[in-house]
Amino acid sequence: MKILITGGAGFIGQRLAKRLLDRNELNGKPVTEIVLLDVALPNDDRLLSDERVRAETGDISDPAVLRRHIDTQTEAIFHLAAIVSGQAEADFDLGMKINLDASRALLEVCRAAGHKPRVVFTSSVAVYGGTLPDVVQDDTALNPQSSYGTQKAIAELLLSDYARRGFVDGRVLRLPTISVRPGLPNAAASSFASGIIREPLAGVRSTCPVDGETRVWLLSPKSAVEALIAGCEIDREKLGNRPIVNLPGLSVSVNEMVAALREVAGDEAAGRIDWQRDERIEKIVGSWPGAWNTARAEQLGLSGDENFADVIRAYIEEKRADERA
Amino acid sequence: MKILITGGAGFIGQRLAKRLLDRNELNGKPVTEIVLLDVALPNDDRLLSDERVRAETGDISDPAVLRRHIDTQTEAIFHLAAIVSGQAEADFDLGMKINLDASRALLEVCRAAGHKPRVVFTSSVAVYGGTLPDVVQDDTALNPQSSYGTQKAIAELLLSDYARRGFVDGRVLRLPTISVRPGLPNAAASSFASGIIREPLAGVRSTCPVDGETRVWLLSPKSAVEALIAGCEIDREKLGNRPIVNLPGLSVSVNEMVAALREVAGDEAAGRIDWQRDERIEKIVGSWPGAWNTARAEQLGLSGDENFADVIRAYIEEKRADERA
Repeated sequence: MKILITGGAGFIGQRLAKRLLDRNELNGKPVTEIVLLDVALPNDDRLLSDERVRAETGDISDPAVLRRHIDTQTEAIFHLAAIVSGQAEADFDLGMKINLDASRALLEVCRAAGHKPRVVFTSSVAVYGGTLPDVVQDDTALNPQSSYGTQKAIAELLLSDYARRGFVDGRVLRLPTISVRPGLPNAAASSFASGIIREPLAGVRSTCPVDGETRVWLLSPKSAVEALIAGCEIDREKLGNRPIVNLPGLSVSVNEMVAALREVAGDEAAGRIDWQRDERIEKIVGSWPGAWNTARAEQLGLSGDENFADVIRAYIEEKRADERA
Repeated sequence: MKILITGGAGFIGQRLAKRLLDRNELNGKPVTEIVLLDVALPNDDRLLSDERVRAETGDISDPAVLRRHIDTQTEAIFHLAAIVSGQAEADFDLGMKINLDASRALLEVCRAAGHKPRVVFTSSVAVYGGTLPDVVQDDTALNPQSSYGTQKAIAELLLSDYARRGFVDGRVLRLPTISVRPGLPNAAASSFASGIIREPLAGVRSTCPVDGETRVWLLSPKSAVEALIAGCEIDREKLGNRPIVNLPGLSVSVNEMVAALREVAGDEAAGRIDWQRDERIEKIVGSWPGAWNTARAEQLGLSGDENFADVIRAYIEEKRADERA
């Protein structure tokens, strides 16, 4: 099976590729080729040296680039490429180009290819907003309060209609905020949700831009990758007329995140957080749900994390393993 | 005030234009010019002879056409042009071009003009679908089961984000199915909702493609035009972070529609309906809500019709007046 991952040089993209290579199977077929398409090449040597991997650069909003990398052999596509929330708010046109136009172009190229590939779009807590129940339900209306959330909601609608019409075998997985991400802070409004754990663990101070009572809905990178694969493997019939699935997450307040950091790494680490509210970030993050109902996801065999302290422990363990490698 | 109406040669477009000319005021300002933009010219002589009216033809998905008719003097835009549900289902690309690309192009031209015009988009019952409560609520999730509904839902999201960012002063009015429309049947899946009244009244047989128990959500043309104007005049502040309003309608079953026809026009008229179910139409119409909560619309000063028999009587009265004119 040939697999395309857009945003394949990103953190989740590379991690997903490695997991697919390790299991060497998707939808019951062996993994013969993984194309990692992104604006840059991946930095992971293990990926680059695997003969099943082909790393490609290109602008995914250019249909010609997509046509070059999607053919009737491409049986599964994970569309992860995106302009993150903070950047899409700062640069409206770039967000529209990548989060909307590229998603639509991808669906059109699949439609033209005609073989109905399995297409997985990732979406986000950011499609919700406005007045929300404490726990968002499957039938809660979307009311995004950011351009990123709007663009993701539109991509969801497009994929759903392309799937309904039989142009693709599509599904949308709505991801909680991913934490703990390794690496550097990024332009996502949710960047702090990793930063306030990652930086203190590395002995570096980190600023938390939201109130400690702010409730966030989190998923670890490892569980996110497992959910992407499990989501890709769900039988189409089981999705009925609604190919959008809210993935399970952990509902924690920022104060609870810090308490978990204290539990795992001690007072000194937890003391490395500076609290300085940023209205711009608070407005975006505060519009997102702190939890949603996970009954449907669980019914479909998707699962999340048990508790945030374990997520931190897993992050530390992986970081050590990477440093040894 | 200069006003643009896209789809201005359509039935609702012409009717809206005449009403605006009659009241000669919108948002507290005199109506100095109404541009009717459509693929064809309006057929109403009274409109064409009014010196405040300029009728223009052009492809509204072409930004150059929109730029020609939207300038900083254009203070209000009613965007009514659309490919109807049945046709958008039959011709996917045409629906995407007019219902999505043209709506986006219109918003972009307004953004570039920079004067933040008041923009009214019309949307539809078709944005809903799947498993629905008996009465759809303001916070019920959209799950369109047609390409038309998908494209309308996307246009809603785009307008909401352009409004949130301050590019336009936008609002979306979700219309019930309009009945009784004069004229000929069209390619809308809901065409029968006018046909089964209009044709029998004219002594012509009409086919009803759905079961008599099917519940529809209706608004008369007259009330639709009043709601468009009232919706355009709502203060932006009153809309909060949700510029989308579900307009009040009448919830009636098809059997109740026929009973109202019998009440107004007698057994002979009501006997001119042939019942022949059409699975394609039933699937689309059956996915639409039979009613939605109208509390917010009423709070905002919007109203609908009292009962369907009166709607039929008003249709007959207007038809007679037109024939006398």
